[in-house]
Amino acid sequence: MTDRKYSLGIDIGGTNTVFGLIDSCGHIIKKNSILTNSNKAPELLFKNIFNKIKLWETELNLQNFIKDIGVGVPNGDYFTGMVINPPNLGKGWDDLNLVSLIKSFKNIPVTITNDANAAALGEKSYGVAKSMNDVVVITLGTGLGSGIIVNNNLVYGYDGFAGELGHLVIEPDGRDCGCGRKGCLEMYVSAKGLDYTVQEYRKEYQDNKFLQSIKSQTIDGKLLDIAFDNGEKIVKDIYKYTGNMLGLGLAQIAKILSPEAFVFYGGLSNAKHRILDFAKDSMNANRSKYQKNKIKILLSDLPDGEAGILGASCLNSFNQ
Amino acid sequence: MTDRKYSLGIDIGGTNTVFGLIDSCGHIIKKNSILTNSNKAPELLFKNIFNKIKLWETELNLQNFIKDIGVGVPNGDYFTGMVINPPNLGKGWDDLNLVSLIKSFKNIPVTITNDANAAALGEKSYGVAKSMNDVVVITLGTGLGSGIIVNNNLVYGYDGFAGELGHLVIEPDGRDCGCGRKGCLEMYVSAKGLDYTVQEYRKEYQDNKFLQSIKSQTIDGKLLDIAFDNGEKIVKDIYKYTGNMLGLGLAQIAKILSPEAFVFYGGLSNAKHRILDFAKDSMNANRSKYQKNKIKILLSDLPDGEAGILGASCLNSFNQ
Repeated sequence: MTDRKYSLGIDIGGTNTVFGLIDSCGHIIKKNSILTNSNKAPELLFKNIFNKIKLWETELNLQNFIKDIGVGVPNGDYFTGMVINPPNLGKGWDDLNLVSLIKSFKNIPVTITNDANAAALGEKSYGVAKSMNDVVVITLGTGLGSGIIVNNNLVYGYDGFAGELGHLVIEPDGRDCGCGRKGCLEMYVSAKGLDYTVQEYRKEYQDNKFLQSIKSQTIDGKLLDIAFDNGEKIVKDIYKYTGNMLGLGLAQIAKILSPEAFVFYGGLSNAKHRILDFAKDSMNANRSKYQKNKIKILLSDLPDGEAGILGASCLNSFNQ
Repeated sequence: MTDRKYSLGIDIGGTNTVFGLIDSCGHIIKKNSILTNSNKAPELLFKNIFNKIKLWETELNLQNFIKDIGVGVPNGDYFTGMVINPPNLGKGWDDLNLVSLIKSFKNIPVTITNDANAAALGEKSYGVAKSMNDVVVITLGTGLGSGIIVNNNLVYGYDGFAGELGHLVIEPDGRDCGCGRKGCLEMYVSAKGLDYTVQEYRKEYQDNKFLQSIKSQTIDGKLLDIAFDNGEKIVKDIYKYTGNMLGLGLAQIAKILSPEAFVFYGGLSNAKHRILDFAKDSMNANRSKYQKNKIKILLSDLPDGEAGILGASCLNSFNQ
């Protein structure tokens, strides 16, 4: 019955919530993934999490073994502890004081941030960005999220809303975005954006056998990757278009921040070099001759789902 | 003959170089402005500066009264002490180890940065951005320069080239820029950009009396301001266009950094509300409904030419 003190890192997603016990060196002692069920009351999710932790207490034969809790959650506000209008979460999550809610379960230090910031902190603390002071971590999931590290610190901006890279406008008068604007980066570079592109190509190339063979609205990325590897030209075109659009966005970000690297993770990043090589070419083509080929394009090397809980576990101790 | 220790702040511009002795509270003890004469050897400029300082030594009856030197210079690299390919300076300034050169005159700590960063540091230390941790300072001169403060620190990026806001692309396939790209912000919002716009309007509105009355290639901003105040519609249109383009750029920057304020200084900022009100409207129109009307648009309140030397004087002591 030693009092070992771990951090509890929680990464709340639209579908699943991952949580884990993490020691001060970034070792994941215990980890679990449960359904978020975000249409039910948020209390329920935390009831399930803390029930699981009681089981861990018995298994590990430890008491009071959690020293603090860090949470990555869509639209989580580091400064206020609130969650406001989170994409992909149910109504019960809007205008929610998440820090208070969690403290009602366990009254220890609790810090929240948005999910992309948590992942960025994970990459910075334990991943491919470990030695980097200036790096931008981009999540290519349903949407496009990002966490920015500058001078070794997360960038929150004045109000906690820095890093909205998915809403950089890369094509004025382009595709309508849910934010009310047109031509936002995530309308081209994300699972959602890729779906849109495939639909457009399908309309334009009605005779293309491969495209007509895809029936579902939501595109299976793995299917496209295999087709790309098999030399399917239309998929190469689609990935090139997607990579070009990403590169336009990266060039804009690079002009503002000049980071050492862009690090990618999330579902669409599984396409790897198939999209990112085009993105790199496009980024470099859109920079001045003095600035070409300077910035690394990297893939996360952390196991799936770990960047978020590792980063969340650092939130209470990370220097801000 | 007391040993009072001041910082020497130097702000090198294409035409003039301003330098001053500054105490640790930001009081300017002595100040002077001389021609940069950048087509002559850089040594000559510093010979003139240090000759003047010898006179100050006598006037103030002090010895060894400079503890360190900070310099703001176009394309000055904070990390290497080099000046590389600086716009508006002569060939002798390209590939120049400026720190070594200055140390050959006076072997005390010397730090350089680019001119826009120095001005940002001046605003942050002694100007309108004094209480701000997250602020973007934009110089509207011949071009458009910027210095970015995030988490209370200047943003250099990995290689010292962060803050190239003048080269954000706001109109793909727009005006050709010297950087090799098209549609860069400074091709619309700067003295150069305004010239371009006036020429375009002059071609389009060949019967417009006011436009035809402007004969010179380089536009007199004061003349336009007066015409604007007198209700000259074509000038209002030109300023609205310029402000709209600026607002597009500000909205992009805001999505990445979410600063407390944008602070403007430099020649074109003398147009004040005449351009900046349009810019504010355009910025807000290009943000999501949750992010409108949050960011302040401010004018520098430091006397002309002082932001640069004040900021430069802080370079050796500012926490980085």
